[in-house]
Amino acid sequence: MIPTKEEVEAACERVKPYVHNVPILKSSFLNEFSGAEIFFKCENFQKMGAFKMRGATNAILQLSEAQKKAGVVTHSSGNFAQALSLAAKNLGVKAYIVMPENAPQVKKEAVKGYGGIITESASTPIARQQEAAQIQKETGATFIHPSNDRNVILGNATSAAELFQTHPDLHYVFTPVGGGGLIAGTALSVKYFGTNCKTIGGEPIEVDDAFRSLKSGKIEFNETTNTIADGLKTFLGGVNFPIIKKLVSEIISVEETEIISAMKLIWQRLKIVVEPSSAVAFAALLREKERFKNKKVGIILSGGNVDLKNLPF
Amino acid sequence: MIPTKEEVEAACERVKPYVHNVPILKSSFLNEFSGAEIFFKCENFQKMGAFKMRGATNAILQLSEAQKKAGVVTHSSGNFAQALSLAAKNLGVKAYIVMPENAPQVKKEAVKGYGGIITESASTPIARQQEAAQIQKETGATFIHPSNDRNVILGNATSAAELFQTHPDLHYVFTPVGGGGLIAGTALSVKYFGTNCKTIGGEPIEVDDAFRSLKSGKIEFNETTNTIADGLKTFLGGVNFPIIKKLVSEIISVEETEIISAMKLIWQRLKIVVEPSSAVAFAALLREKERFKNKKVGIILSGGNVDLKNLPF
Repeated sequence: MIPTKEEVEAACERVKPYVHNVPILKSSFLNEFSGAEIFFKCENFQKMGAFKMRGATNAILQLSEAQKKAGVVTHSSGNFAQALSLAAKNLGVKAYIVMPENAPQVKKEAVKGYGGIITESASTPIARQQEAAQIQKETGATFIHPSNDRNVILGNATSAAELFQTHPDLHYVFTPVGGGGLIAGTALSVKYFGTNCKTIGGEPIEVDDAFRSLKSGKIEFNETTNTIADGLKTFLGGVNFPIIKKLVSEIISVEETEIISAMKLIWQRLKIVVEPSSAVAFAALLREKERFKNKKVGIILSGGNVDLKNLPF
Repeated sequence: MIPTKEEVEAACERVKPYVHNVPILKSSFLNEFSGAEIFFKCENFQKMGAFKMRGATNAILQLSEAQKKAGVVTHSSGNFAQALSLAAKNLGVKAYIVMPENAPQVKKEAVKGYGGIITESASTPIARQQEAAQIQKETGATFIHPSNDRNVILGNATSAAELFQTHPDLHYVFTPVGGGGLIAGTALSVKYFGTNCKTIGGEPIEVDDAFRSLKSGKIEFNETTNTIADGLKTFLGGVNFPIIKKLVSEIISVEETEIISAMKLIWQRLKIVVEPSSAVAFAALLREKERFKNKKVGIILSGGNVDLKNLPF
């Protein structure tokens, strides 16, 4: 059930020609500030600006030639819509993207810019699922879920795998938790390439479904989604939850103000542009920094697609 | 008079242990957008966040032991104040910084954070020069000018020198032009390490003193300094102007709106935080992009110390 080491290694080889081995940044100020030695894996520098490029690429590369010919379909208003569009374009495959009709124009433009074919739907989960099913039926395209897909998870695992290539002795790897695809993939690489290393998730208190899911042992949902970390409003799924339950040590929930200060510290000190979602993992470390003193910590900065006109500082 | 290749090479060896060989970033979007192949040398990732660390470090390392013991002094309200403070701290030297009494508190805090000893003065050029002279007299400290100092210029040359180590075939290197210390140093490295490569400056039209100085053959000044690029309000000096006159091919002046759009493109596409001054060099290339089509262009992104509360977008 849990993907094997060989599967993760194969995903690394498979996506290598299509994704950036993004830089790992350090800051002596942030090390001093946190007490930990932090290695930031900068997926904001990834193609299309987020780690999602890894999972989307791996999922498409696993399709048969006939499947590739018919295209792929997903529903997303966020980074996965762009990732699937660009990954498909790079591989000569059609990408059908179901987006809510009220999605920001700038996001629709970005998807179009990467060659995605947009179908608008009402903004309810059921409407978009129906729309995607309709497209599958009409075109024969393969549905690829943004986070709850084994090949997407394996693709996402390649970021942490790269981190261990140069830093095999990390004590912890932190990621943000949204739909669960990044932390599940990361936990696989921590298990297979780490030495006594633990995977920890950061999650906004406002959407702490994963935190509660780990406690209750079943997938929980959010009643409201009042967080600045707009990539983290989704919930876990039947493919990634078993991996998370087995391999993730804990999830630390953080306040909105903590997310904003962590984001500001990253912008000011690392001099890089990251999304609020990316800052959540760092905020989780800072919240409990006494526990991570003198530890080597990897943090996956998930992406950098942010609206510069709408910053929280 | 013009520093020799051996002097530049010696500066590279001298500062190497004390500065970052900062990454060079590329963006396929920005290449397509501009028509040129651009290599961004990211001095925003430098220690204290700007290329000024290079010149400050080289200047202090060239002092005798007796001079080091007495300390260094400069007047600056910007990046050089922080650079001299940190470079001095790293080398166990005292740094006296004359800052205008109306300088923003956050800049004073930054200088203090790096161990600089601040003396406040009235904000006129004469008042700060007098204050610095007084400190020299009292302490025996050596005055180091932020841009018009041979060793500062040689230190600044090391950024472009690193660029040529991996990209020896650049056709052009662009830098912003303020006090002239960066472009003078860059032009030395272009001359000694480039192959048929030219140095071009970018300067705000609002403070186009260097543009006019190259035309008239003598140092010109600005009557007003109404630009967002606050690092570029200063004028050239007797040490750097002869180098600039001899080695810089041209200076391209840009509008404020061009600076802001270039800055936005860098933030959005490279996902990095740069100062408005840094964006001026890229804005200059974009303004005349037809001329640089299919050329390999290095751009020195000078720094990333920007007030996140006061962004132009």
